[in-house]
Amino acid sequence: MSNPTAAMIVIGDEILSGRTRDSNMHFLAGKLTEAGINLVEARVVSDDRAAIIAAVSELKERVDYVFTSGGIGPTHDDITADCIAAAFGVSIDVRDDARALLQAHYDRSGQELNEARLRMARIPDTATLIENPVSTAPGFKIGNVHVMAGVPSVFEAMVASVLPTLTGGKPLLSQTLRIDRGEGDIAGPLTALAQEFADLSIGSYPFQRNGIYGANIVIRGTDGARVESAMIKLQNLFAE
Amino acid sequence: MSNPTAAMIVIGDEILSGRTRDSNMHFLAGKLTEAGINLVEARVVSDDRAAIIAAVSELKERVDYVFTSGGIGPTHDDITADCIAAAFGVSIDVRDDARALLQAHYDRSGQELNEARLRMARIPDTATLIENPVSTAPGFKIGNVHVMAGVPSVFEAMVASVLPTLTGGKPLLSQTLRIDRGEGDIAGPLTALAQEFADLSIGSYPFQRNGIYGANIVIRGTDGARVESAMIKLQNLFAE
Repeated sequence: MSNPTAAMIVIGDEILSGRTRDSNMHFLAGKLTEAGINLVEARVVSDDRAAIIAAVSELKERVDYVFTSGGIGPTHDDITADCIAAAFGVSIDVRDDARALLQAHYDRSGQELNEARLRMARIPDTATLIENPVSTAPGFKIGNVHVMAGVPSVFEAMVASVLPTLTGGKPLLSQTLRIDRGEGDIAGPLTALAQEFADLSIGSYPFQRNGIYGANIVIRGTDGARVESAMIKLQNLFAE
Repeated sequence: MSNPTAAMIVIGDEILSGRTRDSNMHFLAGKLTEAGINLVEARVVSDDRAAIIAAVSELKERVDYVFTSGGIGPTHDDITADCIAAAFGVSIDVRDDARALLQAHYDRSGQELNEARLRMARIPDTATLIENPVSTAPGFKIGNVHVMAGVPSVFEAMVASVLPTLTGGKPLLSQTLRIDRGEGDIAGPLTALAQEFADLSIGSYPFQRNGIYGANIVIRGTDGARVESAMIKLQNLFAE
């Protein structure tokens, strides 16, 4: 596949401690697949400066698009923006455009734009802002890295802002067949099918429910006619 | 913290395409926290030989324990065992101990131990088996890497087999206070508290529900008395 590639970095001790179950990865994965962008890796790293810088530095060189979630709020454990600046070797400070957005927001709500809230206007040099229609404090894009909030409603709104700016590929089409037989029974013919349709991705995802073993066979590709041909062959292989 | 460290590698295109939402990471994270083992990174990689080998090779050097899930079934897309062998530079073939387990299992159920199912007896040299009380086909441990199944019921059973073999640390204790105020209002005093209790981890996890902004403040540490002291100070800081 020559579709663009992407990686995601989820930043947050709360996921790694098991306290919170991440949902942003699953959300972004679905949106990227629809857009024909191939998510090749997702990482959860802790709120640790060295870990964040290392992950960003490595992945921004390896894929077309990097997306991060988390760590851009006003509290002491929100260190993502500073880490991104370090990964790109640029300086970071409160920036006028971000400050103006926040000032207008807090003026409207009658709250003070205090020192903590001003932290959310710290934007690395050369970055462009990502709109936050939910709670105003912006994300930002620098190079190929898109830095977004961790709160799911805000993350999802930022993804919606970002998606139209990405160059997508051919949408990945998929068809699924559920087969109520153990993988060991179907693996042989399935291997032959995967070899015949080497231009497609054919995955077998086993399940076990109420003592019954089965597998969902998912055929993926960008050419709808090929996916359809493979699915017809698959159905014939395992027709009762 | 001098607790042991761990990393997880989730192997599977189905997670990265958004088709399936992973649950094994969240499960393992909770169990490791209970055991006093510090999960410092989790990665989702695709069913790609180079990607799996690279992730295993890097992480096994960086942490005390590595755990993988997925890719050890009988179908053509199950390539984890071969990749692990490559990462350790050892050979891999059907092994007698694993074959005997499978033979007994399929004899009991009147099914054939065919070529596909025999793939599940491919175990890297020098590895020890991890028991699978759900569906027999074993996981394995080599070096500090624990290779387990992706199906959640099987993964969870294998984790239960593995946990007693790990050297845990002091359990990480945590206390949480929900504060129904925006993070921007509480960030200043919270920073001072985090500085005073630098031996603890104090995280702020914002939420927004029905238009109300708030945050859960989580105080974590291995010394229960210190966690308690910090929590009392926190409560006094934000008492109405």
